[in-house]
Amino acid sequence: MLQNKLWGGRFVGNTDPIMESFNASIAYDQRMWDADIRGSKAYVRALQKANLVTQHEMNQIHVGLDKIHGEWSSGKFQIKPGDEDIHTANERRLKELIGEAAGKLHTGRSRNDQVVTDMRLWLQDAIATLKGNTIDLINTMVERAAIEIDILFPGYTHMQRAQPIRWSHWILSHAVALSRDVEHVEEIRRRVSVLPLGSGAIAGNPFSIDRELLRKVAEFLFWGSMCLMHLSKMAEDLILYSTKEFSFVSLSDAYSTGSSLMPQKKNADSLELIRSKAGRVFGREDKEAMFDTYDTLHAVLQVATGVMSTLKVNQKNMKAALSPDMLATDLAYYLVRKGMPFREAHSCSGKAVYHAESKGIPLSQLTVEDLHTFSPLFDSDVSSVWDYTSSVEQYSAQGGTARSSVASQIEHMRAWLKEHRG
Amino acid sequence: MLQNKLWGGRFVGNTDPIMESFNASIAYDQRMWDADIRGSKAYVRALQKANLVTQHEMNQIHVGLDKIHGEWSSGKFQIKPGDEDIHTANERRLKELIGEAAGKLHTGRSRNDQVVTDMRLWLQDAIATLKGNTIDLINTMVERAAIEIDILFPGYTHMQRAQPIRWSHWILSHAVALSRDVEHVEEIRRRVSVLPLGSGAIAGNPFSIDRELLRKVAEFLFWGSMCLMHLSKMAEDLILYSTKEFSFVSLSDAYSTGSSLMPQKKNADSLELIRSKAGRVFGREDKEAMFDTYDTLHAVLQVATGVMSTLKVNQKNMKAALSPDMLATDLAYYLVRKGMPFREAHSCSGKAVYHAESKGIPLSQLTVEDLHTFSPLFDSDVSSVWDYTSSVEQYSAQGGTARSSVASQIEHMRAWLKEHRG
Amino acid sequence: MLQNKLWGGRFVGNTDPIMESFNASIAYDQRMWDADIRGSKAYVRALQKANLVTQHEMNQIHVGLDKIHGEWSSGKFQIKPGDEDIHTANERRLKELIGEAAGKLHTGRSRNDQVVTDMRLWLQDAIATLKGNTIDLINTMVERAAIEIDILFPGYTHMQRAQPIRWSHWILSHAVALSRDVEHVEEIRRRVSVLPLGSGAIAGNPFSIDRELLRKVAEFLFWGSMCLMHLSKMAEDLILYSTKEFSFVSLSDAYSTGSSLMPQKKNADSLELIRSKAGRVFGREDKEAMFDTYDTLHAVLQVATGVMSTLKVNQKNMKAALSPDMLATDLAYYLVRKGMPFREAHSCSGKAVYHAESKGIPLSQLTVEDLHTFSPLFDSDVSSVWDYTSSVEQYSAQGGTARSSVASQIEHMRAWLKEHRG
Amino acid sequence: MLQNKLWGGRFVGNTDPIMESFNASIAYDQRMWDADIRGSKAYVRALQKANLVTQHEMNQIHVGLDKIHGEWSSGKFQIKPGDEDIHTANERRLKELIGEAAGKLHTGRSRNDQVVTDMRLWLQDAIATLKGNTIDLINTMVERAAIEIDILFPGYTHMQRAQPIRWSHWILSHAVALSRDVEHVEEIRRRVSVLPLGSGAIAGNPFSIDRELLRKVAEFLFWGSMCLMHLSKMAEDLILYSTKEFSFVSLSDAYSTGSSLMPQKKNADSLELIRSKAGRVFGREDKEAMFDTYDTLHAVLQVATGVMSTLKVNQKNMKAALSPDMLATDLAYYLVRKGMPFREAHSCSGKAVYHAESKGIPLSQLTVEDLHTFSPLFDSDVSSVWDYTSSVEQYSAQGGTARSSVASQIEHMRAWLKEHRG
Repeated sequence: MLQNKLWGGRFVGNTDPIMESFNASIAYDQRMWDADIRGSKAYVRALQKANLVTQHEMNQIHVGLDKIHGEWSSGKFQIKPGDEDIHTANERRLKELIGEAAGKLHTGRSRNDQVVTDMRLWLQDAIATLKGNTIDLINTMVERAAIEIDILFPGYTHMQRAQPIRWSHWILSHAVALSRDVEHVEEIRRRVSVLPLGSGAIAGNPFSIDRELLRKVAEFLFWGSMCLMHLSKMAEDLILYSTKEFSFVSLSDAYSTGSSLMPQKKNADSLELIRSKAGRVFGREDKEAMFDTYDTLHAVLQVATGVMSTLKVNQKNMKAALSPDMLATDLAYYLVRKGMPFREAHSCSGKAVYHAESKGIPLSQLTVEDLHTFSPLFDSDVSSVWDYTSSVEQYSAQGGTARSSVASQIEHMRAWLKEHRG
Repeated sequence: MLQNKLWGGRFVGNTDPIMESFNASIAYDQRMWDADIRGSKAYVRALQKANLVTQHEMNQIHVGLDKIHGEWSSGKFQIKPGDEDIHTANERRLKELIGEAAGKLHTGRSRNDQVVTDMRLWLQDAIATLKGNTIDLINTMVERAAIEIDILFPGYTHMQRAQPIRWSHWILSHAVALSRDVEHVEEIRRRVSVLPLGSGAIAGNPFSIDRELLRKVAEFLFWGSMCLMHLSKMAEDLILYSTKEFSFVSLSDAYSTGSSLMPQKKNADSLELIRSKAGRVFGREDKEAMFDTYDTLHAVLQVATGVMSTLKVNQKNMKAALSPDMLATDLAYYLVRKGMPFREAHSCSGKAVYHAESKGIPLSQLTVEDLHTFSPLFDSDVSSVWDYTSSVEQYSAQGGTARSSVASQIEHMRAWLKEHRG
Repeated sequence: MLQNKLWGGRFVGNTDPIMESFNASIAYDQRMWDADIRGSKAYVRALQKANLVTQHEMNQIHVGLDKIHGEWSSGKFQIKPGDEDIHTANERRLKELIGEAAGKLHTGRSRNDQVVTDMRLWLQDAIATLKGNTIDLINTMVERAAIEIDILFPGYTHMQRAQPIRWSHWILSHAVALSRDVEHVEEIRRRVSVLPLGSGAIAGNPFSIDRELLRKVAEFLFWGSMCLMHLSKMAEDLILYSTKEFSFVSLSDAYSTGSSLMPQKKNADSLELIRSKAGRVFGREDKEAMFDTYDTLHAVLQVATGVMSTLKVNQKNMKAALSPDMLATDLAYYLVRKGMPFREAHSCSGKAVYHAESKGIPLSQLTVEDLHTFSPLFDSDVSSVWDYTSSVEQYSAQGGTARSSVASQIEHMRAWLKEHRG
Repeated sequence: MLQNKLWGGRFVGNTDPIMESFNASIAYDQRMWDADIRGSKAYVRALQKANLVTQHEMNQIHVGLDKIHGEWSSGKFQIKPGDEDIHTANERRLKELIGEAAGKLHTGRSRNDQVVTDMRLWLQDAIATLKGNTIDLINTMVERAAIEIDILFPGYTHMQRAQPIRWSHWILSHAVALSRDVEHVEEIRRRVSVLPLGSGAIAGNPFSIDRELLRKVAEFLFWGSMCLMHLSKMAEDLILYSTKEFSFVSLSDAYSTGSSLMPQKKNADSLELIRSKAGRVFGREDKEAMFDTYDTLHAVLQVATGVMSTLKVNQKNMKAALSPDMLATDLAYYLVRKGMPFREAHSCSGKAVYHAESKGIPLSQLTVEDLHTFSPLFDSDVSSVWDYTSSVEQYSAQGGTARSSVASQIEHMRAWLKEHRG
């Protein structure tokens, strides 16, 4: 059996079969079959240019590799015992198909070189696909934000109601994070594609080559973790918004599951899965982690796109959740505009909130007399504060909650999408 | 400066000061001063028994160590440059105080032995304290559960309403988890206390001694992680219950913080801190991690006790959150009692839920005629299903939601507390 | 398609196929098929006792389950689209085989209950297997230690030569660590087997049940991590010992691999794989991690057993690596025996080491005159220090390096093995 | 006490002191005092431009802040109870110094904004310092490589001798990795400096601001982890090279420590510390981790620079470690040059290695007759293979081991240093 192995010459014993399967990576690295064949075709062309194989040998090898490509494409490639990884498997098959000449393909190329090249090729494709998936999700979110721009609801910090915002503002804040993820992965892709090919495991400076690929893979895993974390945070919000108590959004049945015990249950399983994937891939560096990250993101991004395009928004509940105490900051600014330092205004407004709470009435129903006990600056014009739309319209700077700000961010994102698509 | 070091003999250069401070652990291990002194006093007694120090030398050393103990107690101990860890510091001071004889204290004892002994002594005390903190928390929870046994509210799975339960049932489910944590740490403490003292860095089988302590420390860290995870899950529920939308509980001001911008905000910071500490300590093994885990748990357990003893429960909101669809499982069991297989009954009940939802009415308001379209087994006695108290009373087995089950669990926990206290 | 799902009643849309496969665990949890069938057979017996199914229905279900068992055993079970996990798959098949009655199997049992029971059953078997693997490894090591008890070699700390030890002492120090791992996992197995079966996802105290299993699984993963760490440390030493520069041991060809580029290379791949597995499983809690930990350990333990039973020891090189400076501690003790405090003796011995190094001669070749410059206590009897065997024989306490200590530890381990086997 | 808090208005209870200290970050974030003051000075200038404070108020605030700056610089700033973080502390002090007007500094600025700005400023400085430390280390390594270019020694893969390389080649391979780290952190610094300042915790799009900083911090931590991993790998090699068995390098005493028990021990503690720091910081995101990463790297880089500039190379031992079997790849290429496919040549060379090993002679001492049994292509010119210098000279491509390649890489690195310094 050892005779099949690329490094079989000096060994005389037999390999422990448990050790063999423990060591084998063919189970997961066979998905690089296409990259491996492309890499070998390019390599043999380089050998021919350097006169290390003849034109004829190169042709033989190309024909053989194309045949192997056909076998993989049609699901007919047979993995045999001893094929410890995709590289051995393809080379073993090549030898069966074209004989002797197959042996020349490994001239001056260590297994490491080959693994590095194949991973690089595979990673480039993988990144292109994930980028496309992310773009699709962002596009869905931006178009949804455009349609639902007039829906207001509470912005939350620490899961407590903070200030009124536009629903589209929430959507866009997550879309922007994802757009940064796209830009980040484009950078990584550029760096992956310039990775140099070395010439031997040691003397041709292999340390650097390996290390460079490891660095790229580590960057890809880190990127994957960040992207999953962003999706996880979005899912976390949506899980909350879809509880009975919030009832801001309803998940489509296609993205929910029930309970085998409780007939009324409709669980946000898609969102829970998305949320749970964050944190999964930090801190690993290997090939398995690369594939795992890709598969996870590939599924998560598509499920998130499905969720975001089928989500039903319950505008009535969103509106009902706005309450006057969310305008307490505006009440403080009212005093600031009349000359009070912010710290003091914050304190006055806080006391008003406490007073309203104690009386069991909404903040907006305190009379001007009530308010006078906190500051003589309060006047009848304070009534203008109690308007949610005016409140969000105050923030008209870039990234603000004003309708115009949100609309301009939508335009900005559409232009961005045009630029980054394809 | 090298002359102060325990291993200074064969060196002739000077140590790089950055290297020195990089290598030093005195900043965090000085908290073991008491354990170090106790360990040394015991060790010198052993040396005297073995005739390796005289009675007089032992007395000298004891007097010196007691003096050092006094200096630490009164905050007067002076750490000097070159004191790289607590062991060096105490030995350096001993030599200043009693001269020559101090040098005998290290006979046959490697630094490793000493570190191991000190950590072991320190850890025993630390575990005793944390156990006490956990017991206090459990006690608070159990007594609260006893008082509030009649409050019903929704049990949640996946953050969706599942079935009605008693509030005390929720409390006890967390208390039970913590009681298991106590039992677990008691086991660890027992194992920590039988750790053998070795006699030299290598030949006296130091591998095993080190490894045994590392294992204990790793177990302690693992335990800390588990305990923090349990507290984190409890905090996660309470954060949800304290949102405006749920409004089941209100945190005492002593455990909330506000926002420097928004005057109305009252954030559940104590709970967020508790939640965030989970996951912090996994996967480390060293001394720093041991101290960090202790400090974190010591604070978290006390804060959790404070939160649980001051929390205000809004019984009215809890009751209002119960809805008839949470009894859909009971509706299915109604059919099972009339002879229908559970799977089919689950499906019938599910259709009824959907039908009620479509009509926009509560499940309990479907007429017997409506229900007949799903199964002819429905009859007017179905009305008995729509009672939350009856529903929880069905589960009277150990650990169930029936009043008697919960009361008996409270008794059980009180007995457990009596046994494990002190 | 939704009709196949256990919770299909109230849903009207279709599930997104990506979501479906994302959510599915059948790919890895099908290995619990046997546990699932055993669990269901036990459960239906309980239902029959409670009169929730008839004797006839129970028999039908048992016959159906046995048939399914046969299909899995013979590799004929067909997984169908919609079989999202092993539990759904088996129940779907049961319905095909026996119709209606299959629906009764889920009475009062939530999916969660079922998952918990199955994992518990599976985990018990898994632990028994891993325990057996560890026992085999320990046995190999102990018998090897018995045979090679007279081989001395350098003990290392921080990868620097420390003191002479017996090769068997090194072996046993690792064997003892593994024996503690066995004791630890036996404890976990005991706790896994008493896990209670609940009765419903919420009301029957499911929190506790879930949490208890999670705790068990977490303990198993933690145990796996610890055990892998111990194996990793052993592998790390052996990698070092098998470098050309150390040449203490030679790996059997069955546990080595070559290089596809460099014909002379013989890599300790088995050891590198063992070493690399440590750290892999910390900090996860889920089913996938449980299977992964099991598979990893199952392979690693067997490979380690193979390595340890085929390893060739190069006694000559081990002996040659002993050098007189490793007896510097003995030189210090020589002075201690003549009345010098240890700290001072350590310093004298250190100076002698430095002096010998400067002269470029072994420590043992310093003359008594040379030594006199460091202390007048040195005399001609110092020559007795320079004997490696005498040095190791000094440590005759339990766990020491004396022949008798090592022999008694071997006896102790043999007795331990007898007690813990099977 | 609550009156000191920025958010004190609506609260009436007292904060639990444990909760308070649990929540406080002043212990570690006080190091941002300078950044906090710079940030506030810039912010008040913006407020003045927007007419939210008068010119006079701005001047008052500036004077107050400068005074606080002076207090910190001279170590006279007093932290008081209630100063939960550096921001509160500075604002509390400002109010003591200038009264009322201090309250205006927080207009339209949430605590979050302030934290974000301060961390950003601090991080820019921190990155600049670490970049400088890394440049110093690279410079030391490059100049050392220039001087020692003619020293050959074994290149290792999997800790087994692989092919002869230049010592400078090993140095440069690590220097290049570090130079990539510098380029990477320069990119991060650019991105940190364009971080926008928002205007309020929610409505001014705070999600994005926070998330952007978290992303930066996460990138910095990731970078730190990668850089530590590179240093760790370098340290790992050096630990091996400094064992007695390798004896390729000797650490300066300034970077070694001894043993308190064994007088002859000289441990590579500096290298062990460097190695152990890798893996420490992965997977965290918070402020504490940012400071911890900075401190660790700041020390590690300086210690590594010290180690690399004082390391003694034992050229004789390096040379002695080269052995003819390391030229087995060259032997295979000899056959390739005579027309044999590489795979076959690899196998022939492997058999020759095995044959020499069996006879117990060096590979280079096989006669041409011996070699003929493996291939008739072997001839007397095979003797030209057995030359280490010729072997390394073969690899003259960029990054190769030829003297010219290494020299040109040194030139390249010197130019790179010139460009990236300062």
